[in-house]
Amino acid sequence: MPLKELLFGRRLRTTEEQAEQIGLSSGMPVVGLDALASAAYGPEAALTMLLPLGALSVVYIGPVTLFIIAVLFTVAISYRQTIEAYPQGGGSYTVAKENLGVAPGLLAASALCIDYVLNVAVAISAGVGALVSAMPALLPYTLPLCLVILAFLTVVNLRGVRSAGLIFMFPTYLFIGCLGITILGGIVKTLLAHGHPVPVEQLPHIAPSTSLATAWLLIRAFASGCTALTGIEAVSNAVPIFREPRIPLARRTLMIIVAILAFLLAGVAILSHSYGITATPPGQAGYQSVLSQMVIAVSGRGVFYFVSMAAILMVVSLSADTSFTDFPRVCRLLALDQFLPPVFAHRGRRLVYTYGIVVLSLLSGILLVVFGGITDRLIPMFAVGAFMAFTLSQLGMVFHWRRSHESHAARSLLLNGAGAVITGLTLVVITISKFTEGAWLTILIIPSLILLFTALRRRENKIAREIDEVGPLKIPHLSAPIIVIPMQRLDRLARKALWFALSLSPDIRAVQILAEEMKTEDLSHQWSYLVERPAQEVGYSAPRLVVVPSAYREYFGPLLGYIKNLGAAHPGRVIAVIVPEFVEKRWYHFLFPHRAALLKNLLLLRGGPHVVIIDTPWYLRE
Amino acid sequence: MPLKELLFGRRLRTTEEQAEQIGLSSGMPVVGLDALASAAYGPEAALTMLLPLGALSVVYIGPVTLFIIAVLFTVAISYRQTIEAYPQGGGSYTVAKENLGVAPGLLAASALCIDYVLNVAVAISAGVGALVSAMPALLPYTLPLCLVILAFLTVVNLRGVRSAGLIFMFPTYLFIGCLGITILGGIVKTLLAHGHPVPVEQLPHIAPSTSLATAWLLIRAFASGCTALTGIEAVSNAVPIFREPRIPLARRTLMIIVAILAFLLAGVAILSHSYGITATPPGQAGYQSVLSQMVIAVSGRGVFYFVSMAAILMVVSLSADTSFTDFPRVCRLLALDQFLPPVFAHRGRRLVYTYGIVVLSLLSGILLVVFGGITDRLIPMFAVGAFMAFTLSQLGMVFHWRRSHESHAARSLLLNGAGAVITGLTLVVITISKFTEGAWLTILIIPSLILLFTALRRRENKIAREIDEVGPLKIPHLSAPIIVIPMQRLDRLARKALWFALSLSPDIRAVQILAEEMKTEDLSHQWSYLVERPAQEVGYSAPRLVVVPSAYREYFGPLLGYIKNLGAAHPGRVIAVIVPEFVEKRWYHFLFPHRAALLKNLLLLRGGPHVVIIDTPWYLRE
Repeated sequence: MPLKELLFGRRLRTTEEQAEQIGLSSGMPVVGLDALASAAYGPEAALTMLLPLGALSVVYIGPVTLFIIAVLFTVAISYRQTIEAYPQGGGSYTVAKENLGVAPGLLAASALCIDYVLNVAVAISAGVGALVSAMPALLPYTLPLCLVILAFLTVVNLRGVRSAGLIFMFPTYLFIGCLGITILGGIVKTLLAHGHPVPVEQLPHIAPSTSLATAWLLIRAFASGCTALTGIEAVSNAVPIFREPRIPLARRTLMIIVAILAFLLAGVAILSHSYGITATPPGQAGYQSVLSQMVIAVSGRGVFYFVSMAAILMVVSLSADTSFTDFPRVCRLLALDQFLPPVFAHRGRRLVYTYGIVVLSLLSGILLVVFGGITDRLIPMFAVGAFMAFTLSQLGMVFHWRRSHESHAARSLLLNGAGAVITGLTLVVITISKFTEGAWLTILIIPSLILLFTALRRRENKIAREIDEVGPLKIPHLSAPIIVIPMQRLDRLARKALWFALSLSPDIRAVQILAEEMKTEDLSHQWSYLVERPAQEVGYSAPRLVVVPSAYREYFGPLLGYIKNLGAAHPGRVIAVIVPEFVEKRWYHFLFPHRAALLKNLLLLRGGPHVVIIDTPWYLRE
Repeated sequence: MPLKELLFGRRLRTTEEQAEQIGLSSGMPVVGLDALASAAYGPEAALTMLLPLGALSVVYIGPVTLFIIAVLFTVAISYRQTIEAYPQGGGSYTVAKENLGVAPGLLAASALCIDYVLNVAVAISAGVGALVSAMPALLPYTLPLCLVILAFLTVVNLRGVRSAGLIFMFPTYLFIGCLGITILGGIVKTLLAHGHPVPVEQLPHIAPSTSLATAWLLIRAFASGCTALTGIEAVSNAVPIFREPRIPLARRTLMIIVAILAFLLAGVAILSHSYGITATPPGQAGYQSVLSQMVIAVSGRGVFYFVSMAAILMVVSLSADTSFTDFPRVCRLLALDQFLPPVFAHRGRRLVYTYGIVVLSLLSGILLVVFGGITDRLIPMFAVGAFMAFTLSQLGMVFHWRRSHESHAARSLLLNGAGAVITGLTLVVITISKFTEGAWLTILIIPSLILLFTALRRRENKIAREIDEVGPLKIPHLSAPIIVIPMQRLDRLARKALWFALSLSPDIRAVQILAEEMKTEDLSHQWSYLVERPAQEVGYSAPRLVVVPSAYREYFGPLLGYIKNLGAAHPGRVIAVIVPEFVEKRWYHFLFPHRAALLKNLLLLRGGPHVVIIDTPWYLRE
């Protein structure tokens, strides 16, 4: 227990919920890490797409970034409205379900779930990838490093939202600080140098242009850059983790996150243009990330550079944390609607949805193991899920406002309508431009998930129909059960079973299977002396002995056969089989297949509704 | 079921035992494969040791082989006597235990068990190794091939002794025939050529001599060659598989096996001398086995050569079969003496000791997987176990005859005494010469096995002391149990549990844990209407409702706590907990952790001796 407490913290009472809720400063890391970390890879992804343009790419990154920021604000404003409309933690699932119907809701939920799992795997392996490329000696440990970070994130999140917020505050603000200083410093230098600042250190050689700036190229750059928007959903899903006044706090957190992100995106685009920073071909010698070039250009390769790189690396790999906040909450909402088993809605010892956290950890762990800790190939699958959820959520809000009678409904409808169109178009662009790279897989997995969800609910409903009953208990005619005691010898286990049987029913049959057993004593000749007479002497009816031969040396077959025949001969009677079980109070007790355990399982599987199983345990050193 | 029957054959009645017993012709493959296959690697091992002598090695192989054959006959004559003295399947374990005491018996048993497991792994991988060196395209499939052969052997042996004998007859006799023809043909050619026959094909170049024939070198050659003797033990262990007249049949089988083996060993030594066949350095280019050279020298590389090689390959890998015959029998004897769990003494559907066969298969499978199907490094561990068993068995027979009053006791004592000295010396030589190569591991594992055996028996005895009781049943004052029904809602599962409870006892408590559960209905206000009144109306005492709050949202903790307190408040009463269980009659039912299953296990582990667990199953579509 002490280790458990050390690792996960003490149990929290349900009444302690309020103390676990968080404010703006610690909320930003919890729900914003994912979005903010996007600044590290969104512009990079867009610039990489623009590589064929060579030096020209810095000209086009500006307009592309402008478009991305426009979409960002559209999405943000929409979610700002969602937070107000669904303070219980809306998110796309709830919004789509409530306004568009169950099917669109499940579509959004599936897309989100896939996205969250991918985010964990991709973020961790991106962070580790950056670390490994800085320290090549660690290369053989890529997968173990990924799994260590995954385990760390899992434990931190199992400790509760508050501790996650506190732990992730430092890297988050360090990241924002470093990039902010670099961007502001760069802009000041640009202004001082009349738009043409000189990099502190020579930047990598820019590859020559090999292509014209076709519309398709720009669209693909935009689609790639839109990965910067994944994670914006997080706040609206996690509204209940904020302390009161919840709604304004959540809305303010969202808008601050978005503002910082927009500032970072714009800053990167501006410096890219003024310093002439392009992407370097990934996976080739001389590769250097855009942010690394940017920091070097503005302030050189000093201590600040290494601090910045460390902050980026931490934030990128820890950005997986946002998934840990949101995935369990989406699962909880699904569980409340019976699309997932109820355990997903139970809060664990630290008031978080333990089951969802563990499942997320397992799924992304499997992804990491399968891909050996290098998940580049998963990245194209990424943004599809997020934008599908965005679009459905916006569309849902449109329908929401149509039914609403609030004063600002018309304006809100317009806003969300515009958002729906923009995110919908972006979704189409992303799906088309990334289809062959892996987006098809997302498109394939989503329906399977929807099928799973509906199958679970159908099953749950079917069970409910069979077992639900209202009204007072109707009591049929009840007679004492026929008791069967499988017994090879008259040892203390058997005697205990007989005592219990005598206290329950006058109709007891001890069954001895004459299998090839070392320990079987033939009781038939002594039964009267051993059991019948002692029972009758104290006024009980005598238990009978039934000896069943076993031609094939089997034990279970003849026993189950006897019980079946007994049931057939006494319709309407309950057959209670007493299984004396020898128990050692050790965890490994359940590792070995004991005869008693096998018998109990076989009786469950092959017995009928009239068979009841009674386990009388016997403890060593009782 | 049909698949099972196809694979393993129909179930055999215990009364069909006699039909499963075998005679000489099919017995030889079952108990002799291991010994006979030794002809393929014993001389090879001795000649490989003599490699430093170059061409001189063919001079010394004769005397070394003579010594080996002498030991062979000593051992064989000793086991011949053992068969008569212990017709129930003696083997070293029984002989050593009966005559020398339990500890030497366990020593012999451990040595034998290790030997049998090693034999399976080494034989299979040797056969596959030969196949792979002939067809290098199969090299990547070394391990799968090994496992396929292992699976084949396992299935054949699970089908019973008789079917194994029939299946292995063909390769065994083909092997004996091919080698016999080669040896006889070679001897005839030698005689015709006045001792200097010309090989049909040029033999590999003989490496120059690099060492003198020191006594130590010859002793090591002898020790290596003694691996040819492993497997001789088999017949004496497996006497019960022979049909009547059992003893003469087993003795005849043993002597025929030994005679054939001696003939093969002598033949190889003679042809090695007359044709000048030496070993080639193993693991190097140009390696060719001694038997391969021999067949080529006598009859060239024709069809006969390939048939012979195929026969050798089959016999080598199938020689693992002997372990499958004997290992389960040694385990059975150990189980009868409580040194292993009783299941090892139960005969399965085909009248063989299923459990022993499966365990042997698993253990050797693990060895194969761990060593990737290449078990060369295990070979030095090999002969130590066999010779330890031989020596103990001979020594045991010496003590046996000392107490005997039979007429030939003195002569027999002398024979076994000589045997004990010779095998003992051989054991010392093998252990010393192979100690650093791996024999130390055997020396290390043997005591661990002995410890395991004695620990199992001690545990078994301890349990027996606690649970054994003789005399008639004493019946204490019995009162109806207090019945506890954990219940979150009043669904059909709960109603069934209530019915059963009402039929057993007037003291029923339905316990509702107010954890954070989606499906909990608060029953406290309606209990009287729902349950109490209906029960009282038909004359039962009303079940009580107990509501237990759960501050930490746990379900099991508060429930177990309530049951514990209830037990403390009512000492001497049995607490019967009814666990309603929802069951799907599918094999995967047990794969998922159901709450009912968890509760039952927790009650077993944390409940006390006064707690009894009653499982009332509810079947879907009941």
